Amino acid sequence: MVKPKLPAGTRDFTPEILAQRKRIFNTIEKHYKSFGFQAIETPAMELIETLTGKYGEEGDQLLFRILNSGDFLSGLEEDVKEGKNSNDLRKAICDKGLRYDLTVPLARFVAMHKNEIVFPFKRYQIQNVWRADKPQKGRYREFFQCDADVIGSKSMLYETEFIQLFELVFRDLGIENIALKINNRKILAGIAEKFGFANKFRDLTIALDKIDKIGIEGVKKELESRGIKSGFLEDIEGLLDKDKSLESKLTLAREKLGESEEAIKGIEEIEEMLSLLGDFSFEACKLEFDISLARGLDYYTGVIFEAVPKKVKLGSIASGGRYDNLTETFELPDVSGVGIAFGADRIYDLMEKQQLFKEDRSNGPLAMFATFGKSPDAESFAICTRLRKSGIPCSLHPGGKSLSKQFKYADKINCKFVILAGSEELKQNKISLKNMQSGDQHDIKIDELDDFLKKQL
Amino acid sequence: MVKPKLPAGTRDFTPEILAQRKRIFNTIEKHYKSFGFQAIETPAMELIETLTGKYGEEGDQLLFRILNSGDFLSGLEEDVKEGKNSNDLRKAICDKGLRYDLTVPLARFVAMHKNEIVFPFKRYQIQNVWRADKPQKGRYREFFQCDADVIGSKSMLYETEFIQLFELVFRDLGIENIALKINNRKILAGIAEKFGFANKFRDLTIALDKIDKIGIEGVKKELESRGIKSGFLEDIEGLLDKDKSLESKLTLAREKLGESEEAIKGIEEIEEMLSLLGDFSFEACKLEFDISLARGLDYYTGVIFEAVPKKVKLGSIASGGRYDNLTETFELPDVSGVGIAFGADRIYDLMEKQQLFKEDRSNGPLAMFATFGKSPDAESFAICTRLRKSGIPCSLHPGGKSLSKQFKYADKINCKFVILAGSEELKQNKISLKNMQSGDQHDIKIDELDDFLKKQL
Repeated sequence: MVKPKLPAGTRDFTPEILAQRKRIFNTIEKHYKSFGFQAIETPAMELIETLTGKYGEEGDQLLFRILNSGDFLSGLEEDVKEGKNSNDLRKAICDKGLRYDLTVPLARFVAMHKNEIVFPFKRYQIQNVWRADKPQKGRYREFFQCDADVIGSKSMLYETEFIQLFELVFRDLGIENIALKINNRKILAGIAEKFGFANKFRDLTIALDKIDKIGIEGVKKELESRGIKSGFLEDIEGLLDKDKSLESKLTLAREKLGESEEAIKGIEEIEEMLSLLGDFSFEACKLEFDISLARGLDYYTGVIFEAVPKKVKLGSIASGGRYDNLTETFELPDVSGVGIAFGADRIYDLMEKQQLFKEDRSNGPLAMFATFGKSPDAESFAICTRLRKSGIPCSLHPGGKSLSKQFKYADKINCKFVILAGSEELKQNKISLKNMQSGDQHDIKIDELDDFLKKQL
Repeated sequence: MVKPKLPAGTRDFTPEILAQRKRIFNTIEKHYKSFGFQAIETPAMELIETLTGKYGEEGDQLLFRILNSGDFLSGLEEDVKEGKNSNDLRKAICDKGLRYDLTVPLARFVAMHKNEIVFPFKRYQIQNVWRADKPQKGRYREFFQCDADVIGSKSMLYETEFIQLFELVFRDLGIENIALKINNRKILAGIAEKFGFANKFRDLTIALDKIDKIGIEGVKKELESRGIKSGFLEDIEGLLDKDKSLESKLTLAREKLGESEEAIKGIEEIEEMLSLLGDFSFEACKLEFDISLARGLDYYTGVIFEAVPKKVKLGSIASGGRYDNLTETFELPDVSGVGIAFGADRIYDLMEKQQLFKEDRSNGPLAMFATFGKSPDAESFAICTRLRKSGIPCSLHPGGKSLSKQFKYADKINCKFVILAGSEELKQNKISLKNMQSGDQHDIKIDELDDFLKKQL
């Protein structure tokens, strides 16, 4: 006997919860499709060399590795076996790992299938990913990403479309008050260039990224500790002002960073986006130009995005950006890409917190036949079969329970109607129908049943 | 640089293939829902003690195990570390494994959530599973199962519904010539009982299961080698006759095995199923009573099913059966279950072989705006945004390519129409529309575009 338990950080999804989750996935998928993205899927396992070195050292530590099958120790060199060193042994006995995100598998996919696909390649992918993070509230070891990427074009059209996608998906889900932060790594590179620490660009991004946690003073300390004089922050103070509008910040950025070609390029990209957006209206999101947004992952090179709820502390619920060199590691250089990901699990948590889920009985059958005897009679079964044929989801109770217990059961499985087809009623070609929400019960002719139920779908 | 490669036995799904696969999944899901099944999902990883001991020794060998995170060797006893024995070390360094099927996770789920769910619990689950089998044509290390099970009822209603489900799903997919084999483990137990080797029931099932591969003479040898006198096979020869009808075999079984209570129970269960089925018509499947069907997995206790294409050598494409003790290992005794699984990957292979997939452009956007200059103009972008809002999937070409290249691109992404919105045309409030399948091109007023395209969806 085994106590039924789940690995830490993983979850079961019951019918009720899964129905709500599917609403999120379906909404995102609907909008991805409406923008012309096409679905692909990749395997859960990737070769370990596909995964390592893409997410920084910390990311490599968080990869779930698959033990090689069979006699995995055979053929290993003695010193690896005897070294008793987890790091060496890990490399020797695990050729595969579980995917950590959907971006690296995409890069691998594009490089492998470059002759079958056409560029720009607009793909979406909704699959689970695994990270050996310390489990905590809202952080899972298996979670779901909903990615859309465009590979093989540098057009700012796509950044613009992604901004629309963020807005349309959140609006459709009923989510409001989202800060849609944008920045451009080229502007950050321009800052590093102008203020004379171009060789410490990465340190700048790491320090700036922490501003929400450690404040401006903390960032200054972090910069100094990384050998960057923090005085320049005063020069660009206005750009860090949360209350300034997007437009005024862009003007200010031009003033302050105009000498850097790279920074100007970054500013112009954002301006091109805004111009293409035209009078597209925002209801769920507010666009913000946030110079402190740097995004941890090293592969971003251009515009970066992050969607953060303003009224709930939850971190980002969607994000993305442009990357220019991701497929290069897979022997396919000079392919630019841009993409976003919705974090379905955080979106679920946010919607639950804000009570955005409506009561939903759609996961249950529309109708259930009550059973009077010990088992269903052939006539009820035949009617049920006919209803299913006309597309009406329905069920039969297996019998042997009181009617009141059957009603309770029907209610628990989110069934909307219980059909009472007693032999007396059947003789008169009618049945009785109980509405589980209103409690109403009325008779209906058998040949009117299909039409009546179809209207309730 | 890394050569882009996939682990052996795993696959990428391109948009074209995934669109066809989704047709299979959606068809199965539609019918499961119409029978009142509700979806659940369980995590990819289970604790290793949940998985081991459920699939026989061979199954345990085929489990993919996840290496523990961090310094997985620390804290291990020296003799395990130094024993250099893969079997001992494997147990010590892997607490988790990837699920091997969806039935054991279901049993674990039911035991864990027994207070939240109501019985009979009708659930379906469409997820991937992993087995470290030797990869070969048609056999993958990651593949998809589409399961439906009913937990907590012994009613033969459910076996009957599953027979209908096999038929309806295959019929809907356009698959024909399926032998829907049924048997009952109780009848097999009756044979073992009547012929005096009740203690060798398992050997009987293992030997009989091989009849398709090794023939009747092979089965005899296998039985003898397992210490069972094979003479009884002559007594029940008629039951092994492929040409005899289901009904005549049932009569014969009653004659031959009537002394065994267990066998009679098994025969009666099948008769109850047939009676409830009534005049339900079979088009895709033919019901066959196959006494040699034993099914490898040990947990089956009653009716067992297997759907096998008659005209293509492919093995079973769906199967199932009743199990009475599966949740017992998870501290939940006396819960009977019955379930089936469609093997989506084999069904895909069969449909491909039989050319059952229609040409399908539904995975591409309905329309693509051609771009005349280096980048899309704001006006085309605005029209595209409007179309998407009315539910029309469309795309814009990023520009910088000749029209003929853009047409080729549109064709490759399965786009049905290319919209040519030149500045001259836009001034006159019209655009030109090229049908990519017929090659026709005609002008249309901009305010009639939405309605025209909507009709094409």
